[in-house]
Amino acid sequence: MGVAQPAKNGSLKTVGRLSLLLGPDLAEVERILSRKLHSAKPHVARLTAHLQHYRGKRLRPALVLLSARASGSVEPAHHVLAAAVEMIHTATLVHDDVLDGASLRRHVVTINAGWGNPTSVLLGDMLFSQAFHLTSTVDARACALIGEATNRVCEGELHQVSQSGNLSLSEADYFDIIDGKTAELTSCCCRLGALYANAPTDTVERLAEYGRYLGMAFQIADDLLDLTGLEEATGKTLGTDLDQQKMTLPLIHALRELSASDAERLRSLITRTPDATGDLLSLLRKSGSLTYARHRAEQFAAQARSNLDLLPDSEFRDVLSDLTEWCIRRET
Amino acid sequence: MGVAQPAKNGSLKTVGRLSLLLGPDLAEVERILSRKLHSAKPHVARLTAHLQHYRGKRLRPALVLLSARASGSVEPAHHVLAAAVEMIHTATLVHDDVLDGASLRRHVVTINAGWGNPTSVLLGDMLFSQAFHLTSTVDARACALIGEATNRVCEGELHQVSQSGNLSLSEADYFDIIDGKTAELTSCCCRLGALYANAPTDTVERLAEYGRYLGMAFQIADDLLDLTGLEEATGKTLGTDLDQQKMTLPLIHALRELSASDAERLRSLITRTPDATGDLLSLLRKSGSLTYARHRAEQFAAQARSNLDLLPDSEFRDVLSDLTEWCIRRET
Repeated sequence: MGVAQPAKNGSLKTVGRLSLLLGPDLAEVERILSRKLHSAKPHVARLTAHLQHYRGKRLRPALVLLSARASGSVEPAHHVLAAAVEMIHTATLVHDDVLDGASLRRHVVTINAGWGNPTSVLLGDMLFSQAFHLTSTVDARACALIGEATNRVCEGELHQVSQSGNLSLSEADYFDIIDGKTAELTSCCCRLGALYANAPTDTVERLAEYGRYLGMAFQIADDLLDLTGLEEATGKTLGTDLDQQKMTLPLIHALRELSASDAERLRSLITRTPDATGDLLSLLRKSGSLTYARHRAEQFAAQARSNLDLLPDSEFRDVLSDLTEWCIRRET
Repeated sequence: MGVAQPAKNGSLKTVGRLSLLLGPDLAEVERILSRKLHSAKPHVARLTAHLQHYRGKRLRPALVLLSARASGSVEPAHHVLAAAVEMIHTATLVHDDVLDGASLRRHVVTINAGWGNPTSVLLGDMLFSQAFHLTSTVDARACALIGEATNRVCEGELHQVSQSGNLSLSEADYFDIIDGKTAELTSCCCRLGALYANAPTDTVERLAEYGRYLGMAFQIADDLLDLTGLEEATGKTLGTDLDQQKMTLPLIHALRELSASDAERLRSLITRTPDATGDLLSLLRKSGSLTYARHRAEQFAAQARSNLDLLPDSEFRDVLSDLTEWCIRRET
């Protein structure tokens, strides 16, 4: 049993290996998703067809399937659960775009931009409902685990919205928010994968921990992308955190590290100046805050990897390990 | 086994009998709700405390409990399921207020008016999630039934939003919409009540039919109230259907019955004239459309009652029967 190490040459390799290793399983997940999202109502069918464009990395289904394979085998329940968590994730994307007033996602218009907020709210609700309905075909335990995770996701997001405009948000509060809104669901994915592969309890718990730290790293990287990414590359509306004065790790760090006058200048850029990203990034570079945030993401990624040690050597474990690097290096 | 007849002297008596008959059961439902909605996060706790003001007739929990008592006995599962359906209903109210831009509900500010749309969207999501999580403590069958009902509720609402501004909406389409958005959940309540009381299959199906027709009657009455009710009495923002050009039964009937010139006038009142309720109601009276809608609500109420015939004589059956009258006579 070796120590899991990240692959050296990055993102593309990881995504390629994912498709190679999980191809037939991911295809089965897609079939379940498309059956479940089919609607006899033409208006609803058009909306769910548009959601196909949102199709992304399928990280959450991959976590369910990889955790299953790394700790046992993939059973039919895993395909269903992988589809359910992806639907939950999509529901949160649809609602987040309403919250953020975002107009672009994966290079296409968002549901809110194309069909209005009422349709987006209801479509998100329908996705949540369909996800729970799908989960009920597995068993009540799965419903409990996914329900619990979703409770915490919503609580985390509510916490974040309530702190919008609070420029004194602490690092601890920020970590608490992203633990709820992101890490809870990635942890749940890994837990479900291991649990329905009948893995021993300590393996289940370690994989759930892996998923939690991976989620933390992922979200810090996502928040960095919102500040430093390019809209053409990511294909989504950026800068929405700043627009809503949502404090993310680099900003929290910078306000702590900068001189009083620079901190005051940063605060005024955050609260009063639209399109000040250039000046703002200069200050964040001056305080070393982008580097700091990347470093914290790397620490979480390393913590995630350390939870893989008890798994037997396998390609699946290697890809889980690679994912920790991929999720902080990605540009989309 | 007599034929179920509605009580003669109306609403107050029905509500009074509900409390008398179901007092301890409804109190247990409240305890479950308040435990489930408790949050350690102060911001979330404040929001769920505000929801206490939304506390209304508890019609849906009452339907679960009455259906159980009328066809068997109330078991612990019924209390949990009654709390879960009430949470689903509350979630739809919170989201509906966002959709309608409503500022008043049960004489207090709506969540969207007090805390903004992002908080409302997320709080509604949390209520959905908590409801499903609660249901998972019963069994997977309950999760499937509630999930299926919620799927149809969302589909019905999406259908309605997509038809906003369609002045040619047919009566059949209107019935299809309210069947989804309202009757599906009231039917599910009665089904759950009978099912978890171990009632025979035909009793379960007849009670589910009762709940469906009751829901249809209830929604027609609700749509009438939105046109003719008084904000002081109902304690909620009225006229929201008209604001969004949502066609309800009286309008659909009037456009069919009025002369070409009156119909043209009605269409222009609907689409172009704000605060034209007075003129609009005159036209609806002229075409007999308010009377027609009331009559259709009464027909659905009678269809609901006809499904109670196979139940043994009991006070619970009588109250189910009375509810069909209450739901179309109520003024709030």
